[in-house]
Amino acid sequence: MQRAPEWEFDRAVAIRPAEAPGVFTGQIADGWDIGGNANGGYVLAMAVNAMRAASGRPDPITVTAHFLAPVAPGPVEIHTEIAKTGKRLVTVAGAMRREGRELLRMLGAFGDASAGAAMPSQLHGAPPELPPPHECVARSIVGGAVEVPLANRLQMLLHPDDAGVQADQPTGEGVVRGSFQFTDGREVDTLALVLACDSFPPSIFNLRDVPRGWVPTVELTVHVRGVPSPGPLRGRFQTRFVSGGAMEEDGQIWDSDDQLVALSRQYALVANPAA
Amino acid sequence: MQRAPEWEFDRAVAIRPAEAPGVFTGQIADGWDIGGNANGGYVLAMAVNAMRAASGRPDPITVTAHFLAPVAPGPVEIHTEIAKTGKRLVTVAGAMRREGRELLRMLGAFGDASAGAAMPSQLHGAPPELPPPHECVARSIVGGAVEVPLANRLQMLLHPDDAGVQADQPTGEGVVRGSFQFTDGREVDTLALVLACDSFPPSIFNLRDVPRGWVPTVELTVHVRGVPSPGPLRGRFQTRFVSGGAMEEDGQIWDSDDQLVALSRQYALVANPAA
Repeated sequence: MQRAPEWEFDRAVAIRPAEAPGVFTGQIADGWDIGGNANGGYVLAMAVNAMRAASGRPDPITVTAHFLAPVAPGPVEIHTEIAKTGKRLVTVAGAMRREGRELLRMLGAFGDASAGAAMPSQLHGAPPELPPPHECVARSIVGGAVEVPLANRLQMLLHPDDAGVQADQPTGEGVVRGSFQFTDGREVDTLALVLACDSFPPSIFNLRDVPRGWVPTVELTVHVRGVPSPGPLRGRFQTRFVSGGAMEEDGQIWDSDDQLVALSRQYALVANPAA
Repeated sequence: MQRAPEWEFDRAVAIRPAEAPGVFTGQIADGWDIGGNANGGYVLAMAVNAMRAASGRPDPITVTAHFLAPVAPGPVEIHTEIAKTGKRLVTVAGAMRREGRELLRMLGAFGDASAGAAMPSQLHGAPPELPPPHECVARSIVGGAVEVPLANRLQMLLHPDDAGVQADQPTGEGVVRGSFQFTDGREVDTLALVLACDSFPPSIFNLRDVPRGWVPTVELTVHVRGVPSPGPLRGRFQTRFVSGGAMEEDGQIWDSDDQLVALSRQYALVANPAA
């Protein structure tokens, strides 16, 4: 008999094998949502948890998801298919469904994120510099007119220079920097990096003259570049290009040893001011 | 009876429906290779051509591929599955195979890339500034010890400051800028953008002290941000982070009207100096 996981993130992303091979079931939990819809990073983390189990490898290395419908709390099925088992990577395709309805599609490669740790590295970039925690601004549990229960699960401290993003006081630079850790003290592993890459306030809202409103993610890709050291992570998210009713958001996640542990990019739709 | 396409790119990415629904066949052509293996951008363009046909929509919007094996010229099958048909986007999963062997897996969203052209845009970035063509350096048809027949199909002119990338004289900045058009005069459409995003010399080779050798792409994602205006395109590719035996390459493609038409990012493996 399995003991219930100690940490709330592990309980929230728990999956179990169904009878059909390659199929897993899970329960999208309450309290990881923004205005009633589960956070995309959280939902994807559960899907990745199932794909990782199917792969037999310890870590997601590069994972892409297409988000097909908002996900309310409740049961889901995750269907996985091994496309290729290689020496270094196992490639897995996946779909998350509820009562036959498509919620997410995924494609990912799984391996050992610590395998190359001894290889030479060059980082032409640096983690964001954050002031001491007491000078940072906590991620708000309300965002405009909607509640953000997700913010209770995470201890997110925003750089004070970027915090206008959540007060409708855009800086004019589409950048959001801040720190990320779990409220209950669970360390961030490579699975939780998927959540970290999609839980900051949207960097587009620090641009001026962009329509406010929901910016639904169409596609999110996360590259896991290393296993995070213990301690809070720092993230930097940026939107440079808003055009054609769409935008990108590029993310970097750095650990407490100043190592880059994840890159992310998403393609999202921008609210249509004419609609 | 269909007439043969006029342009060599269209002949090279041609697909036809097979008997089974959602399945297409194609012929990976000679002469789009680097050292005998077809260029990944070219192979993906054929796969995207099939997925686009399955979707019934005119343009790829965001497409991700995992590259599972090198692809030599010859016949392939492209299997497609519609995950969701939405108002704005159709989501398609796909696999390219040869004699049952997995070559590529794909996931993409298709729609009308010109649909949002009238919506407000903000570009916090600019196309690369290139000197006049006669001061640029042509993409070499040899790269180290391997031939690059691909370079005959494309008219690629590199910024002279970055051209050391193909002469083993790295600049120390992991950046490659240049222009891109087809040698035979075909205009670059949204399908050809997929090729454009994976045909420049790898930007990592403008970094110093990185191992030379094949840098196999594990995953490539292309966001199509607009329909290119006629004329040559300009690309800017950059690698900032080499770590854990891997790297990313970020690309921007701009058209002759200074509009951003594509963003790309790939996750690739770095040659292991100890191997």
